[in-house]
Amino acid sequence: MFGEYINNTEDPKKYELWVPKIKAYRERLQEGVKPEYSLPDYSLPSEEELERGIDARALAAKCLTGEEIEITSSSATDLVQRMATGQLTAVEVLKAFAKTATVAHQLTNCAMELFIDEGMKRAEELDAYFAEHGETVGPLHGLPVSMKEHYAFKGKIAHAGYVGKLDNVSDEDLAIVRDLYNLGAVFYVRTTEPQMLMHLCSNNNITGKCRNPCNTLLTPGGSSSGEGAIAAMNGSAFGIGSDIGGSIRGPAAFCGVWGLRPTTKRISLAGVANPYDDQSPDVVYPTLGPIGRSADDLALCMKAVIDQNPWEKDPLVLPIPWKDVPEPEPKKLKIAICYDDGFVRPTPPVLRALKTAKSKFEAAGVEVVEWKPLDVQKIVYTCYVAYNFDQNYGQKARLALSGEPVVHLSQKHLSFGLGDGAVSGLEVQRLVNIRDKYRCIYMDKMNEMGIDYILTPAYVSVAAKPETITYWGYTCLWNILDFPNVSFPSGLSVLLEDRVDKSFKPRNEVEEYEYSLYTGPDDFVNAPIGLQLTGRRYTDESVIQAAKVLAEVMQDELTVTQRAVL
Amino acid sequence: MFGEYINNTEDPKKYELWVPKIKAYRERLQEGVKPEYSLPDYSLPSEEELERGIDARALAAKCLTGEEIEITSSSATDLVQRMATGQLTAVEVLKAFAKTATVAHQLTNCAMELFIDEGMKRAEELDAYFAEHGETVGPLHGLPVSMKEHYAFKGKIAHAGYVGKLDNVSDEDLAIVRDLYNLGAVFYVRTTEPQMLMHLCSNNNITGKCRNPCNTLLTPGGSSSGEGAIAAMNGSAFGIGSDIGGSIRGPAAFCGVWGLRPTTKRISLAGVANPYDDQSPDVVYPTLGPIGRSADDLALCMKAVIDQNPWEKDPLVLPIPWKDVPEPEPKKLKIAICYDDGFVRPTPPVLRALKTAKSKFEAAGVEVVEWKPLDVQKIVYTCYVAYNFDQNYGQKARLALSGEPVVHLSQKHLSFGLGDGAVSGLEVQRLVNIRDKYRCIYMDKMNEMGIDYILTPAYVSVAAKPETITYWGYTCLWNILDFPNVSFPSGLSVLLEDRVDKSFKPRNEVEEYEYSLYTGPDDFVNAPIGLQLTGRRYTDESVIQAAKVLAEVMQDELTVTQRAVL
Repeated sequence: MFGEYINNTEDPKKYELWVPKIKAYRERLQEGVKPEYSLPDYSLPSEEELERGIDARALAAKCLTGEEIEITSSSATDLVQRMATGQLTAVEVLKAFAKTATVAHQLTNCAMELFIDEGMKRAEELDAYFAEHGETVGPLHGLPVSMKEHYAFKGKIAHAGYVGKLDNVSDEDLAIVRDLYNLGAVFYVRTTEPQMLMHLCSNNNITGKCRNPCNTLLTPGGSSSGEGAIAAMNGSAFGIGSDIGGSIRGPAAFCGVWGLRPTTKRISLAGVANPYDDQSPDVVYPTLGPIGRSADDLALCMKAVIDQNPWEKDPLVLPIPWKDVPEPEPKKLKIAICYDDGFVRPTPPVLRALKTAKSKFEAAGVEVVEWKPLDVQKIVYTCYVAYNFDQNYGQKARLALSGEPVVHLSQKHLSFGLGDGAVSGLEVQRLVNIRDKYRCIYMDKMNEMGIDYILTPAYVSVAAKPETITYWGYTCLWNILDFPNVSFPSGLSVLLEDRVDKSFKPRNEVEEYEYSLYTGPDDFVNAPIGLQLTGRRYTDESVIQAAKVLAEVMQDELTVTQRAVL
Repeated sequence: MFGEYINNTEDPKKYELWVPKIKAYRERLQEGVKPEYSLPDYSLPSEEELERGIDARALAAKCLTGEEIEITSSSATDLVQRMATGQLTAVEVLKAFAKTATVAHQLTNCAMELFIDEGMKRAEELDAYFAEHGETVGPLHGLPVSMKEHYAFKGKIAHAGYVGKLDNVSDEDLAIVRDLYNLGAVFYVRTTEPQMLMHLCSNNNITGKCRNPCNTLLTPGGSSSGEGAIAAMNGSAFGIGSDIGGSIRGPAAFCGVWGLRPTTKRISLAGVANPYDDQSPDVVYPTLGPIGRSADDLALCMKAVIDQNPWEKDPLVLPIPWKDVPEPEPKKLKIAICYDDGFVRPTPPVLRALKTAKSKFEAAGVEVVEWKPLDVQKIVYTCYVAYNFDQNYGQKARLALSGEPVVHLSQKHLSFGLGDGAVSGLEVQRLVNIRDKYRCIYMDKMNEMGIDYILTPAYVSVAAKPETITYWGYTCLWNILDFPNVSFPSGLSVLLEDRVDKSFKPRNEVEEYEYSLYTGPDDFVNAPIGLQLTGRRYTDESVIQAAKVLAEVMQDELTVTQRAVL
């Protein structure tokens, strides 16, 4: 699964020159923490407390009024409707989210840039527009939307987690930013991501690690780390992440929120800063997608963006309109559940959630069958090779710009597949051939079984401790196959009964390592158990609706107290 | 533009073993020429006469009744409607097309397999079905459809122009064959293609060269050579070709018929025999598409195929339904005309057609602007490199199966781009990057100019003499950009006034060579001048309708006699 990576980009002397830029960047970030929106220093937990693991969600309430709690815990779908009917103003909404976002950052380090003043100016303009015209500027009018850092904002830096890109100021707002703005979104925060964007975790040399709000000992996942954390803290109405291996679904699952990795090429990538300015590694293609607090919010975002006909400006986007799809009746659903991908077995809490899902689904009339592993190791290996088939040229060139230290999971990622090893054009063609054949094999299997959806873990386990995860198979399988997924909260979190299965005999080293990361319930208190629902290519609309219904079925038996926590 | 190709696949000794298989294949083909459908030997022109250049279309009439002429010169759209209302039977229709197809083969060598008996059985079944149920089996009920050789038919050979694949008998009918069959098509002929499928011409070691029906001295183009020839001979209602560099548009333009190269991934490729069994070179992606005698027939075929929702069986097909688009009014059209791609200038007849187009369009109220060349040499070179980035591994491995001689244009093709030279994974990513950037640049340009269509030549010139063409820039530009095109007859053909411009100073060697292939009107009598209309990605429907209107405008002033010839 892993190749060889030659660590030759670090250059401590060169890096010294960049350290002041990092410092300045952090200071600007800190300046964004405005007293009126933040927890006072005295009520902040210490680093040691955070390191022991606390539930940051509960703390946030301390600086919020009841009305602000009501606003920030409302769905985007609800908020936008209330603003459109004059029940709420954009300024009222942003003021509430400015607090949750700021506190989220104070407790989890989820932001890379906080610019609430700019957002407030925009909110005021929107309110003025509404007052004058009696209508909204668009379907996202007044919604505070968070954005992962690596999208170009005019006049702002886009570094994609590379210290050497700290000078990279964008010339213009690009595609998704411009579109969301035109639709009425309010921008005020850009969220954190790991070095190189290629960890299922969050560490970088610019602003450091992000914490999981549910348990600050743990990682929020990655690479849309800050988006997962801010959503769990009700710090934005929804946010935009990106995903080429699990980067939306990991954080959503680990933080107990919703994330959609749409089929690729439905959302424009124009203006997304990535490691490959002059390279387009399209064997495994990235996509943007929403992270939020409800299924409806994912659909709201997607519909608004796709209704702009992005293909009229960007020929790389497919002209597939967004369809309004009704919620399926549970009794008409037939789904397959995958309890093990055949390569790395899920840990006890995840297995429990899958079994719970089965029994609850069946009780609700859903037909459930088992999804047997289908050459996962081969496909995931193909995906790992496809990540690095430029011999790591793009990523290493950008690391070398600053000579910055290569953090642990970047080192791991650079050893994926063949590492720095050469891949010939012929081999690239064979990777694509394997990819396309398995796209067909998986679809044939779904047709043969008569199912439209597959329920799987979003990762082997719940959120892990920082800087540990190396196996992305449960998510990146679907990136290379390009079947869309919704990562959603099962409503369950780790319980005392989720003890490590000591009798378990790992089948391989990857499984042994990854399984060992779950050390039992004590370290994983409150860790949400997210699941992943996968559908056929380009049926993103239906996957969202099916996940909505299945999540409702799973959460039916929650107690009132548990609901309140959610 | 050209690299180095190392000729190391030929093996005369091994090839000797394959010669009997070639002989048997040719005998089977000859057995398909049934006396009842063919011109008697005594009325066939000699090889010398064919080589001097005759109009084969006129000869065909000799063995047809007036009714058969009426049937075979009717559009597919018209025929299917008459069969659906009981005015014609499938057997009547096939009998007429059996004659035109057989004679087309006798005069041009356009077929690789003639199996009219099988077709007749199918036609009888369709008639029986219609008699019993009073309705058709589908929208293509009873249409005689020709198919390029390299699609899998159950129990038949699919060799893709490689001698070494003469044993490759398909296990099943695949996607397009099955779909067309289910829609009511009648199969009875499979058409010729060049060795390796990669010439804008037609020579292979199995059945040799195909001739252009309009002037048998000339090539019908390629690689869908037989489809171009059979369409010009009214030998099928329409046919299916394939195109990765001009293989539909070249033959359509050279033979004076219609061809659509749709945007890729709208038609399933499942079961297309190609040189790459375990390679998928998707930087430049191939597509299938119809070749026929009218714009309406292209739309009829596309709609029928796409209405089957091929994406439900093949996840590589995009779920973009076929739209019924009205014909645009000429006065609402704004198009750009490209008179020169900046690298290889069109020859006098093509330039005359473009200028005629401009004046006729303007007279009809179409707004016409000029399309300036936009980095064509760079993009075409990128495309040439992308064809061979497996270092010719796939094609050479298949040539080596039989050790067959590498025909002239195969040698040329194997030297495209970097020839046998190594291309690294990083370089592949850069090819894709150039491709995707130019997709955006071209669309931006169209948006900036406010145009939806670009009219260009389909090739530098009219049909050339066999085994000469090496520059595909006017067509392959659009393959790598993946903008859809319709190649259509301008209604014009070479005239005495189309003299060589002796004052022309070539700008480069490619232009000098390619321009030299047009030696003046005497050798090119009757050669049709085809043009190519290009639109935005995925607007195939609109491109067909716009081309229909523009072709009507161009042909408005034709004399009654000229119309009769068309």
